[in-house]
Amino acid sequence: MEEVEVAPPQAMEVRIKILFTSLCHTDVYFWEAKGQTPVFPRIFGHEASGIVESVGEGVTELQPGDHVLPVFTGECKECPHCKSEESNMCDLLRINTDRGVMLNDNKSRFSINGKPIYHFVGTSTFSEYTVVHVGCVAKINPAAPLDKVCVLSCGISTGLGATLNVAKPKKGQSVAIFGLGAVGLAAAEGARMSGASRIIGVDLNPNRFDEAKKFGVTEFVNPKDHSKPVQEVIAEMTNGGVDRSVECTGNINAMISAFECVHDGWGVAVLVGVPNKDDAFKTHPMNLLNERTLKGTFFGNFKPRTDLPSVVEKYMNKELELEKFITHEVPFSEINKAFDYMLQGAGLRCLIRMGE
Amino acid sequence: MEEVEVAPPQAMEVRIKILFTSLCHTDVYFWEAKGQTPVFPRIFGHEASGIVESVGEGVTELQPGDHVLPVFTGECKECPHCKSEESNMCDLLRINTDRGVMLNDNKSRFSINGKPIYHFVGTSTFSEYTVVHVGCVAKINPAAPLDKVCVLSCGISTGLGATLNVAKPKKGQSVAIFGLGAVGLAAAEGARMSGASRIIGVDLNPNRFDEAKKFGVTEFVNPKDHSKPVQEVIAEMTNGGVDRSVECTGNINAMISAFECVHDGWGVAVLVGVPNKDDAFKTHPMNLLNERTLKGTFFGNFKPRTDLPSVVEKYMNKELELEKFITHEVPFSEINKAFDYMLQGAGLRCLIRMGE
Ligand SMILES: NC(=O)c1ccc[n+]([C@@H]2O[C@H](COP(=O)([O-])OP(=O)(O)OC[C@H]3O[C@@H](n4cnc5c(N)ncnc54)[C@H](O)[C@@H]3O)[C@@H](O)[C@H]2O)c1
Ligand SMILES: NC(=O)c1ccc[n+]([C@@H]2O[C@H](COP(=O)([O-])OP(=O)(O)OC[C@H]3O[C@@H](n4cnc5c(N)ncnc54)[C@H](O)[C@@H]3O)[C@@H](O)[C@H]2O)c1
Ligand SMILES: [Zn+2]
Ligand SMILES: [Zn+2]
Ligand SMILES: [Zn+2]
Ligand SMILES: [Zn+2]
Repeated sequence: MEEVEVAPPQAMEVRIKILFTSLCHTDVYFWEAKGQTPVFPRIFGHEASGIVESVGEGVTELQPGDHVLPVFTGECKECPHCKSEESNMCDLLRINTDRGVMLNDNKSRFSINGKPIYHFVGTSTFSEYTVVHVGCVAKINPAAPLDKVCVLSCGISTGLGATLNVAKPKKGQSVAIFGLGAVGLAAAEGARMSGASRIIGVDLNPNRFDEAKKFGVTEFVNPKDHSKPVQEVIAEMTNGGVDRSVECTGNINAMISAFECVHDGWGVAVLVGVPNKDDAFKTHPMNLLNERTLKGTFFGNFKPRTDLPSVVEKYMNKELELEKFITHEVPFSEINKAFDYMLQGAGLRCLIRMGE
Repeated sequence: MEEVEVAPPQAMEVRIKILFTSLCHTDVYFWEAKGQTPVFPRIFGHEASGIVESVGEGVTELQPGDHVLPVFTGECKECPHCKSEESNMCDLLRINTDRGVMLNDNKSRFSINGKPIYHFVGTSTFSEYTVVHVGCVAKINPAAPLDKVCVLSCGISTGLGATLNVAKPKKGQSVAIFGLGAVGLAAAEGARMSGASRIIGVDLNPNRFDEAKKFGVTEFVNPKDHSKPVQEVIAEMTNGGVDRSVECTGNINAMISAFECVHDGWGVAVLVGVPNKDDAFKTHPMNLLNERTLKGTFFGNFKPRTDLPSVVEKYMNKELELEKFITHEVPFSEINKAFDYMLQGAGLRCLIRMGE
């Protein structure tokens, strides 16, 4: 815990008072990589909710008092990706884990005794105040409880959107989910919301199955329990394959299985997990010619500013359940406990209450 | 040329008087494989048009005099694939190149002096009369010229449907076509009909480029003319990639290039070509996570009975041009010339006039 100066927002920037934040694997991953990058020290944190404290020049869509979610990837509304209905990979504000400064002037807004402390993915929410580009801020319904919708700014939206926006199961269809971490369970929540008749959870870790029951997962497959490839096990369970699959592991074998377990003719497989640099996705082309579809998604294809407000509304309407994702809660002063829970693999999301 | 007995149609079968047929690579491929299969002698031919001569028991949708296209793959209208809006891979009547007999009684309807002559993909159109399962017969507008719409029963519909039904380019988008044979040029025709702004033709054989100009192909790339991979050449030509690509070569490297040359965020690649048994499709999973879509198609996703009549209407409305695909014409007595043209790689389709 350090006392940090947070400079006022510059043009097209917003200073946000963070009220709640939660810990995601990506924070831990880059925190562990601290020796390998020059962008250090930096302030982590990218799943959060808060209230706009002040706005910089040119900011017209937001004003002090607005309730917001800062997001690690942005939406400029001007570039070809933002103008495409199908993509959220904004050319200007797409996630950049190597950048530790603001776009405006290539400088940090954080400092201790004049020495810069770097930003992380444009959000740095493990701070009572942070400065974020206006394109990375979603304005939401002020009636929404910030201690719940906080988890929508990364993993939960990623999994949810992978199902709702990309796999798009029809009512009554079967869905396989590979990987039952927070992202996979959010994908399962999307399948439940879509009215899937069967939700088959696949994980190598049987401890995940108990938690998953709360998410409407109806059947479980542990690839370790079978001598044949899991795609064959699933094909036998489903008379030829599932209608949709969503891969949320980051493991290349799971990606291939997730593709090969969908039904020919109409099956759609969606990849979400972030693979290793030298992984190769490999399959026989006949699996494609037999009318299967393979897609990947980034942040569940949600455009942060355009789409997140309506995801918050789904929570407000009780279509979407968020409480079950928040398995732990700590005051900011005990943030290290959140790291411990994650490193132990305990639970899904630890909510961190700021200012305590 | 042999005199063959053609038995009357049995239950759910139709006897068709073939008026026109054309030669496709698949006929030549299986004709060359004649030593390797016990299903011989057999009557080839599967692109054709004709008139129903008689119908078997239980056939209610067709009657003598109807104008029809026999198709190598069928539509039973009852199985899960037929009931799915997305698939045409009928469980009952899907193409089967190993079967030389009718489904009904596992016998052939062709014979010479009582000795059976086998069928080919359920059509065997190199005969003045043939017997076909009712599920493999598309009834079309009787005003349509049978010497033109004949080519719709295989390759042309395959390429056309790959673009219109699967790649679905929007007006003004760019499309790359890999392989400029009849199938690829039909895919280009689909791109032209969709209002594509740029149609980039890719082929290793520069002789194909002249023909392709008639099909609205606006630019040509021969991978042999470049030292870098063709997907990079196309990305440079198009500011990051084409919006859609359609692969019509059967070559695995072309399949991979066709996928990797589509734009991130929204690009869709469609595979049509039939690969070798031991080919592997290989790509880095980040190419998928960056929101590209990869699909394959069979017979352009057209359901033969449900969809082909409306393709014929597109020709009648002058939306679709077919004349340019028919580059040669011979009477049935000179069918061997059609084989010579194909083996020389001359032209696209040779129309064969029956009864001459
Ligand atoms: N695309 C995006 O925008 C985006 C955003 C956030 C997270 N992610 C990625 O989503 C993935 C999941 O994130 P998470 O936070 O839920 O992770 P997590 O580690 O909590 O869960 C992953 C689960 O996958 C299981 N698993 C690993 N290999 C497997 C295999 N071969 N077969 C079956 N199960 C297997 C693990 O046992 C674990 O339970 C990660 O790769 C993460 O990087 C992607
Ligand atoms: N999926 C289906 O339902 C279906 C139906 C009919 C045909 N097909 C397949 O479609 C493919 C095309 O059929 P066609 O009749 O037009 O064949 P074709 O041989 O006339 O044309 C193929 C073209 O691809 C080119 N080519 C080969 N390798 C290439 C490469 N690496 N890069 C660029 N160009 C390359 C060749 O030079 C040739 O011009 C074949 O594989 C055929 O089996 C599929
Ligand atoms: Zn943008
Ligand atoms: Zn995250
Ligand atoms: Zn069927
Ligand atoms: Zn054919």
